[in-house]
Amino acid sequence: MKVDVLTLFPEMFAPMNHSLMRQAQEKGLLDFQTHDFRQFSVNKHGHVDDYPYGGGAGMLLRPEPIINCLESLKLSDHARIILLDPIGTPFTQEKAESWATEDHLVFICGHYEGFDERIRSFVTEQVSLGDFILTNGELPTMVMVDATVRLIPDVVGNSASIVHESFQDKLLEYPQYTRPSEFRGMSVPEVLLSGHHANIERWQHRESLRRTYKYRPDLIDFEKLNDQEKEWLKEFQLDQE
Amino acid sequence: MKVDVLTLFPEMFAPMNHSLMRQAQEKGLLDFQTHDFRQFSVNKHGHVDDYPYGGGAGMLLRPEPIINCLESLKLSDHARIILLDPIGTPFTQEKAESWATEDHLVFICGHYEGFDERIRSFVTEQVSLGDFILTNGELPTMVMVDATVRLIPDVVGNSASIVHESFQDKLLEYPQYTRPSEFRGMSVPEVLLSGHHANIERWQHRESLRRTYKYRPDLIDFEKLNDQEKEWLKEFQLDQE
Repeated sequence: MKVDVLTLFPEMFAPMNHSLMRQAQEKGLLDFQTHDFRQFSVNKHGHVDDYPYGGGAGMLLRPEPIINCLESLKLSDHARIILLDPIGTPFTQEKAESWATEDHLVFICGHYEGFDERIRSFVTEQVSLGDFILTNGELPTMVMVDATVRLIPDVVGNSASIVHESFQDKLLEYPQYTRPSEFRGMSVPEVLLSGHHANIERWQHRESLRRTYKYRPDLIDFEKLNDQEKEWLKEFQLDQE
Repeated sequence: MKVDVLTLFPEMFAPMNHSLMRQAQEKGLLDFQTHDFRQFSVNKHGHVDDYPYGGGAGMLLRPEPIINCLESLKLSDHARIILLDPIGTPFTQEKAESWATEDHLVFICGHYEGFDERIRSFVTEQVSLGDFILTNGELPTMVMVDATVRLIPDVVGNSASIVHESFQDKLLEYPQYTRPSEFRGMSVPEVLLSGHHANIERWQHRESLRRTYKYRPDLIDFEKLNDQEKEWLKEFQLDQE
């Protein structure tokens, strides 16, 4: 997958050179490039922003530097051109799964107080990381690249560990324990030390449902629960009384 | 504000040295520190993870390195100790506003497939950035720090630009334009060039409502709309027919 990022702060993308994103690049599964659109500024002072028409606080990014930079990439028709903006569709795991099958993603990072409206007509989609306000688009771009790239086949070594993750199967993950078996007076649940696989799986399944019911009931499709799961839910409800 | 981050990848926090986060530190409004909990590993090989009890794919972070690192910070009773995890409360602008009034935030970044359950009993809150899966907690921590720190008084120079942002007043921001007045055949709306302030404000208010109604109707409190806004909504509905 090729990922191009249009940004005023290429140095902010240092995290892309660590951990899984570095490994994906080393394996040749990710080609990640940043492009400083200040180099396409309209004057020799490198200005990329200007005052808003109609007044108002702050400055806006002008359209020319971003669009000229975008066109310098000589994109094919099927590149996804993504604008980070609160107006956009909220980013979700489903979006990451969809992007993970694409060949080429281009992210445009806004900055300052906003950008000229006309930039929107050059993008294929507008996405928001969530209902909160950030200084710029660099951090949310990295979050989205991370969530997407790790779903590309062979990026994560052990594919079993993707399957068992939270959200992927719509239930939160069950509690997990590792050594030491006792830590500050807290012990690992006995069933996990039993070596009895069927009992362990049953416990994990039940705890996964319990945790989801407690913290994120919105993730449960109550119509699709089997008889055993319905029975467990009744027990959780009794526990809470 | 003091922000401490427990992480296996201190170098990933380079973005905190740019843009507004750098300015906040230079102004003495933010004291940002990372702490590598690998230095608190349980053996000389620097191992911080181990196999899960009961089997399963992947490795889990052991409790001792993280908790010993946490205790080395000698926290006061009112520090917020935040664990990044999908199980947590979703991060929102309201959460950022609440944290912005705190003296001391401590973030614990998970990694690999998960962490020992007992770590949870040492934190004051568990927060999730959204319903998507990431490689680790470093990027979402930076997002949350950015959203929070920029709300500390005097971090953003022009306080007017905070007030007019998306979500802060529950409506999406109106379209904005800057120079040039014509770009690739697209012109700036005439009202913005008129110099007539009342008309401009009215147009901005109406476009803000229109955009929110189109993209994020869930943000509108329909009971609180005034007569003019209700009238505009009817016009938008006619436009869509």
